[in-house]
Order: sequence, then C-alpha cells, then structure tokens
Amino acid sequence: MTTVGEGDIVLIALDTKKRWLVRTEKDKKLHTHKGVVDFNDIIGSEYGQCVESNTGVEFMVFYPLMKDFALKVDRKTQIIYPKDAAIITTYAGIETGNQIVEAGTGSGALTILLANIVRPSGRVYSYEIEEKHIKIAEKNIEKAGLTDYISIRMKDVTQGIDEQNIDAVILDLATPWLVIPHAYEALRGGGVFVSYSPTIEQTQKTVYALKNGFGAIATVECLIRPILVRENMTRPATRMVGHTAYITFARKIIRRSFKNH
Amino acid sequence: MTTVGEGDIVLIALDTKKRWLVRTEKDKKLHTHKGVVDFNDIIGSEYGQCVESNTGVEFMVFYPLMKDFALKVDRKTQIIYPKDAAIITTYAGIETGNQIVEAGTGSGALTILLANIVRPSGRVYSYEIEEKHIKIAEKNIEKAGLTDYISIRMKDVTQGIDEQNIDAVILDLATPWLVIPHAYEALRGGGVFVSYSPTIEQTQKTVYALKNGFGAIATVECLIRPILVRENMTRPATRMVGHTAYITFARKIIRRSFKNH
Amino acid sequence: MTTVGEGDIVLIALDTKKRWLVRTEKDKKLHTHKGVVDFNDIIGSEYGQCVESNTGVEFMVFYPLMKDFALKVDRKTQIIYPKDAAIITTYAGIETGNQIVEAGTGSGALTILLANIVRPSGRVYSYEIEEKHIKIAEKNIEKAGLTDYISIRMKDVTQGIDEQNIDAVILDLATPWLVIPHAYEALRGGGVFVSYSPTIEQTQKTVYALKNGFGAIATVECLIRPILVRENMTRPATRMVGHTAYITFARKIIRRSFKNH
Amino acid sequence: MTTVGEGDIVLIALDTKKRWLVRTEKDKKLHTHKGVVDFNDIIGSEYGQCVESNTGVEFMVFYPLMKDFALKVDRKTQIIYPKDAAIITTYAGIETGNQIVEAGTGSGALTILLANIVRPSGRVYSYEIEEKHIKIAEKNIEKAGLTDYISIRMKDVTQGIDEQNIDAVILDLATPWLVIPHAYEALRGGGVFVSYSPTIEQTQKTVYALKNGFGAIATVECLIRPILVRENMTRPATRMVGHTAYITFARKIIRRSFKNH
Repeated sequence: MTTVGEGDIVLIALDTKKRWLVRTEKDKKLHTHKGVVDFNDIIGSEYGQCVESNTGVEFMVFYPLMKDFALKVDRKTQIIYPKDAAIITTYAGIETGNQIVEAGTGSGALTILLANIVRPSGRVYSYEIEEKHIKIAEKNIEKAGLTDYISIRMKDVTQGIDEQNIDAVILDLATPWLVIPHAYEALRGGGVFVSYSPTIEQTQKTVYALKNGFGAIATVECLIRPILVRENMTRPATRMVGHTAYITFARKIIRRSFKNH
Repeated sequence: MTTVGEGDIVLIALDTKKRWLVRTEKDKKLHTHKGVVDFNDIIGSEYGQCVESNTGVEFMVFYPLMKDFALKVDRKTQIIYPKDAAIITTYAGIETGNQIVEAGTGSGALTILLANIVRPSGRVYSYEIEEKHIKIAEKNIEKAGLTDYISIRMKDVTQGIDEQNIDAVILDLATPWLVIPHAYEALRGGGVFVSYSPTIEQTQKTVYALKNGFGAIATVECLIRPILVRENMTRPATRMVGHTAYITFARKIIRRSFKNH
Repeated sequence: MTTVGEGDIVLIALDTKKRWLVRTEKDKKLHTHKGVVDFNDIIGSEYGQCVESNTGVEFMVFYPLMKDFALKVDRKTQIIYPKDAAIITTYAGIETGNQIVEAGTGSGALTILLANIVRPSGRVYSYEIEEKHIKIAEKNIEKAGLTDYISIRMKDVTQGIDEQNIDAVILDLATPWLVIPHAYEALRGGGVFVSYSPTIEQTQKTVYALKNGFGAIATVECLIRPILVRENMTRPATRMVGHTAYITFARKIIRRSFKNH
Repeated sequence: MTTVGEGDIVLIALDTKKRWLVRTEKDKKLHTHKGVVDFNDIIGSEYGQCVESNTGVEFMVFYPLMKDFALKVDRKTQIIYPKDAAIITTYAGIETGNQIVEAGTGSGALTILLANIVRPSGRVYSYEIEEKHIKIAEKNIEKAGLTDYISIRMKDVTQGIDEQNIDAVILDLATPWLVIPHAYEALRGGGVFVSYSPTIEQTQKTVYALKNGFGAIATVECLIRPILVRENMTRPATRMVGHTAYITFARKIIRRSFKNH
C-alpha cells in the first residue's frame, strides 16, 4: 500500500498536466515524449518516489486519486470534469450509504466518483442506452476498483426508473426534462435532483419542468481559474475553460396537490 | 428516517436563500419574517413536506445535507464555503478511510465536510489554538453528528504535527508555509497537501516553500455563478462572490536529496 | 482650465468609490459623512489638489472624466455602466464624425459617452418615448456640456428611424428585435448594430432576427474584477458585479436577396 | 466612401474570426483556405456587400473599424487587445484633444486606438527603445491613416518624459514603476496614469510606487466571455481568454508635501 506493487495502477506525472495512468508490469516500460520509464525502477519503491527516464527527465510516481481515474477514463463521450463533479456531489450532499440513480453512464467518469463516495454501503444505479458506452464504462469502473458498488442498467431512463426511495437522481443527458416525472417517483421525500446541461435551452426546459413537484431549485455554473505562481511572474493562466455546463439542483417536495396526481 | 421525528434537526426553507437549520420540539414554533411555523405541523410528516406559516406562507421541510450543516455553523470566524470545500475534497481525492490533518479548525465547517467523507473508518485530526473556536466547533460537530470521527488538537500546527502516514494535510490559516516541513513529515509518500489562502502573498509564500519536497503543485480559484432561470427573464445574478481564496494543491515526493534530510 | 473656476463642475473624491460630482459655488460647502468641504478652499486651486474637510479628512479635487458624468447622472432608470459602454464603443468602432442612432435615451449615460466620442463633427440621435426620461436626460447632457451634439427624438424607435446612412445603431431597450428592420434601413452598408440586453431570451430573439440582413454577429459579456492591491493582502474584491447584460454586435450586409426587398 | 475604391483597405470576413485586412488592387486576388476572392468583384461595390470566392463560399466586405486595424497589426510583440484598450480609454477618460504619452509603442496597436480618439486636435507621444518595433509600428500607423497624430520618440521612458501638461500617461512595459516619477512631472494636475501589466508582481510594485503623488488608485482585470447564440444550443464558448493583464488607474494629486519635493 505504501510501496508500488507489480500490477498496481499508478499515476506517472511529469507535471500537473502530462500524466499517465498505467498498470505496472515487470520488465515493461512506459514510452513518453520525454523518454522511456522503466517499470522495474518503480515496482517496490515508495509512492511519491521520483524516477528518471532514459533521457534523464524526472517523473513522479503517485497512487492515483479517484479524480485521476475519472479524468483518465477511456472514452467515446464528453465527460463531466472534476470541477463539476465536485460541485454536484457536495451541493447534492452525496455521502456514504446513498442510493443514487445516474443517467447516462457515458464513459463512467461521474459514475466512478459517485460510487467512490457512496461505498461501501451505498450504490449507484447508472442508466445508459448505448451498449458500446456500457462496455467502455464497465472497463473504466473495473480499473477504478468500483464494480461492486455500481449497477449498470441498459435502459432508456426517459421511459422510467426502476428504483425507489433514492437519495439523488443525477442526469447528464440531452433531454433531462423528460426524466423529471420518473425522478419524482424514484426519489425519497426531500431527495435531490441534479441535471448537468451544456446549453441554456436544456437548462430552461429542465427548470420549468421542475416547478412540478420540486422546490429549492437553483442553477449555477462553476469556473475554475488556474493561477500560475512563479517568482516575479505570478498570473492567471492565459487560456481557461470558459464553459462546460449549467448545473441545476432541486429537492423533491410533497404538497397536497401532488399527493393526488 | 423518512418522516420527521421529534428532536430531529431539520432544514426549513423558504427558497434557496432563506433557510433555518433547527431542532424540532413538540409544542414549540419557529418565528420568521414570513410568519410562525408550528413544529407540531412538521413532526410526523414526511420529509419534503410543505407546511404553511400562520400567515399562509409556504415553507419546505428538508432533512439537512451535510453542506447545510457546514453553511449553518454557529461561527466566530470566516468559513470555507461549500464551493471551495467541494474543490478541495474532490481535487485532493479525499475518500472514506482517509486519515486527514486539518488546521485551523475555526468554526468546524470544513471539518464537518471532511469527517462526513472519511467516516466511518477514517478520521480528521483538526488543529486549533483558540479555545473559544474549539468550543464553538465542538458544538457544530456534535450537531452534525460527527463527533466520533474527529479529534480536535489544541495545538499550534506551525510547531509540529503529531500524526504520521497521513493521506492529506489541509490548511486554512494565516501562515501555511510554516507548516510545510511538518506536513512533509506527517504525510505518506504521494500524500496530498492543500492550502486555502485569501491573499496572493500567502499563496506565493506557500508555493515557493512547497518546492522543497512537493511536486504536482497547482493553484486554482473557483468562481460560482448563479443563473436565474425564469420565463423570459433568464440571466446570471447581478451580484456574485468575486473571491474567497486561492487553493493550492501539491503531493509529497521522495527524492534521494530528500531522503538524507 | 488647470485651476478650478467658480461654477466649474468638479469631482470631489474621498477614494475610488465615495465621490461627489458638484458645481463649485463661492461661500458654499459640500456636506459629507466625513465632514464639510469648503468650496472657497477649492476655487482657484490647481486640479488634483487635496483639501481637508472641517474634520481633517483629506479630499481630492479632480476635473471630471466623461465616465464620471455618465456614472453620476441623475437617474430614474438603470444605466449602462462604463465597462459595457467601453466595450460597446470600442468594438463598434465609434469615432469622431460618426452619425449614431441610440435608443432608448434613458437617463442619458450612454448618450453622453457616445456624444463625447463623435463630437464635434458627428451626432447622436437618441430615441426615447418617456417624456420624464427625456427631461432628466437633457439635464444630464447639459451638465456634461454635450447638448450641441445630441438630438433627442421623442419617438418609438420600434415604429421607425428617421435618419439614413447611419454609422451605428445602439439599442438598450426591451424589444430590440423589433427595431432590426428599421436599423437595417437606417444603417449605411457595413454599418454596426449593437444591442444591450440583460436577459438571454432578449439576446436570442435579437440574434435570430439579425440573421436577416446582418453578418459578423457576435455576443459577449464583460466582467470586471476589481483587484485590491495592498501590502501582504493583495486579492480580488470579495464581491463583484456578476452580470449586467449581454452585448450583441453585427454589421449590415448586402446580398442580392436583400437588394430586392 | 460608401463604395469600395481601388487601393482602399478593406476587411474581408468569413465570420467573426476568419478575417483579412487587405488593400484592394485591380486584377489581383485574395487567396484563402475557402477559395480565391477576386478584388475586381469588390472594387466599386457597396460596403457590406457579400461576394463569392471561386469555390462558392460567401465573404463579407467591410470598411475596417479602428479595432480591426489594432487587431490586425503586423507584429513582433504581444499587443493590447481591444477589450483592454476599451477599458483603458473609457476609464481614463481619453477624448478628442487629449495629449497622451504612451510607452512602449510595441507594434502600435494601442497607439492606433489612442490616436483615433484624440484626433484631430490631440496627439499621442509614443516612446519605444527598440528600433525594429518602431519600424513595424510606423507601417501599422500609416496603414491606419493616423501618422499625423502620433509622435514616436525613440527613447527610454524610464529615463524621462519630454512632454509637459499631459492628460494621460499609459504604460505597457516591464517596469512601469520606474516611470512613475517622470509621469508625475509630465502630467497636468489630476491627470490620469494607466499601467497594463500581465503579472501581479509588476502590478504590486506599480501600485506601491503610485502612493507617492497619486490618488484614486484602482486595479481591475477585464474578462470577455463570448456567448454562442444558436437555436437550441445557446451557451458560452468552451474556451476563453482567462487572463491578459491587470490594469491600474490613478490620478495625479497635489499636496503640500509634494509641492516641496
């Protein structure tokens, strides 16, 4: 656990941007643009150890954090970035033991972060209609060691949700507003609804539909600004991500008028 | 658990801004600027239920999320807001089972969010030198039900850290750079250092000091922009929080040159 | 011109926020929360001079910049702030000699900034339907000394524009899309259309309508972040303006299909 | 003036990003990645006219705005972008008739925007030490038609400023704090000092030096967020410019203590 084992998944980092998430293998090597790193130099050394490539460039060997697994998923789809996953999970109060419905699974990046929070007693039910996405997601989830905490449902979530008494429904799909009646049925009283949408039109349709059965509705966007701290040259980065998505939060409410429907 | 019990702590919400975190008490009432809410109307009803005040205004009754406990702490100090707590915990990879050192405790807002993530098997060791802060923090932690997962140390963390093999050291104090040598000793190889500082000068001193023993150093700031989604009037909020703090992340590295010190 | 004359309009400033735009008057005084400033101390002194109030607080005496006139207009309406006026005038290429149509006049803040740029040979034709706004705007414009360069038209600009061969049409009103056909007729070939709208729905309707006859359509928003530079305490301001409006720019184009209409 | 003449400088635009600033020439063509545009199709047509390349792609023909000249300068140096030039000129109250000192000239982008505002009666004195920059700037200024309103001084502005009674001193150079005593001497009472610096350290040194003789000191940064308005796909752009520079403003003040120095 404190030293790198053979077959461990490690994060080999040149700096905060160039990084490789790989499984160590005896007598094998990692080929990079800064030279070749020999896994034999890594296996058995302590985590945090610096090793040199054959060209003398220093690489750092870290145990991966869960956000590294999420960022480094094999993928066919756009993923939810750690900044947005952070806001989603904290604002939605996701915690160990929670029962979560998520859709769509996509490449499984958010699924991984959610499952890592709710484990060991909680569970993520992740809906996805594309079989090819499911195959990729399953591999990513297995790599992150979270298979036991996730049930993937190959089903169109706009047609219904199988689970009940769910703590949170978290949506990253094209038509979240179509899922809202099903989310209402699946959620426990006061349960949290989250939707992640790149466009304002999706966000508007979602918020308008939420007026039916949900309260405490709020939409935010999260901007991360990297600051380059260097002697006599400290400044924000020249380029930044200007937009990923709007994130809408709401909680299921119960009124007499809703009891009858 | 799905219905409100007597003595439960509930979040009574008028909307996303006006909210009260209170303990229900039979035959008692909550007095607000929108009328009086009777706890007898709440006890026994399902979570998510809407109740009316004596003036006919509708209030929603929710079980509190952990970020509500963090936001609503009694406090004498500036707290770390959920947006920054979200980025800290996700980027630092905090997860169940982690051993965390935090300083200073302050009012305990971040302590609560950290303990809720690392529980049940992990632990937060929280350093604070002001006895009056500790007293307030302990009450806040008890209210959140997390006393079992937190050890408060009344000690100046710039003088040393008692723990070893720690997963993350998270600092919110005036002189984080003075803690860096102690953080290095306390952290496991590859362990995560986080510092939260309002000013650029603190951030600079911290980053320069981290060059000694740490890698993957990165500083960010997180801006949350609320979007008001309303029929034909959708727009970002007129006022927003422009700055709370710079957050610096780093990981402990091990080099030959460090082995000797 | 370099010394303050009796009857001059001066900007008396405590700092960058507390400032008074007043006309000097012999034997009169300015009453502030930091004491009383005697105009006799100001008249005849050089611009930039610091004077003390009767309580010993220092005030700076400046000649007003045109943005000070714009910021300090008497007003009944929301005004366009200097940050947005700056982007509008620079991106629209407003310059001396331009013929500009503006609507609505409102309190005249943008009118003043536009007239100050196009003078002496250019002119601003400013449309407004509310007589009470016109009266206030006229006073503000006179105070800024720009009456000669502005024609106020008490007319509904959605019903038509009287001018032709105009360099730019600049709109700050509720339904800018209704003005677009008139703007097309009024503008010279390649002339610039600008619309300033607080909501995304107004912006959408405007952009969609512009597809008919305009090219180079672009929408931006401008965020100004104040930085507090202080020894060992440098940081962005805690609160900032999160949103004023979306600004849309376009240029009139001529196609065969448009020639026939 | 309303039709394109032979030898006119025109802006040929594919959209808001791909644009060419070129001089029309009879029987010559513009070669682009979207085909060849024949100047003979352009000369004599009205401004705003759309023309087709030989591959059938539509191009728009505009008269250039001054910000187009500034953006499209030939250059060897980083230029001040229109967003920052807009804030500088509006916040500094630059207007027709002003006498301005600017340093360094660089490629002349800001020089062009300043001269276009102060003309015809005002003047820009632009300091630059690199002869090769001056040569490029002079060509850019000539292209923009502003040679008559600009005096380029090949001199190190940190060694002194020749002019007096100046309305504004505007600096874009590595060590603005070294120019502050000279700026004080050159400015009229209440005159405006502006400094544009990419790093926080430059900004800090500048602000601290300004405490000597200047008041109303304020630093801002300007962020422009492009919004993509498209049917059912409206959203901010994915990438944006995260930082160009901090802009500091101040005004010359006169105190007894300064009179003696």
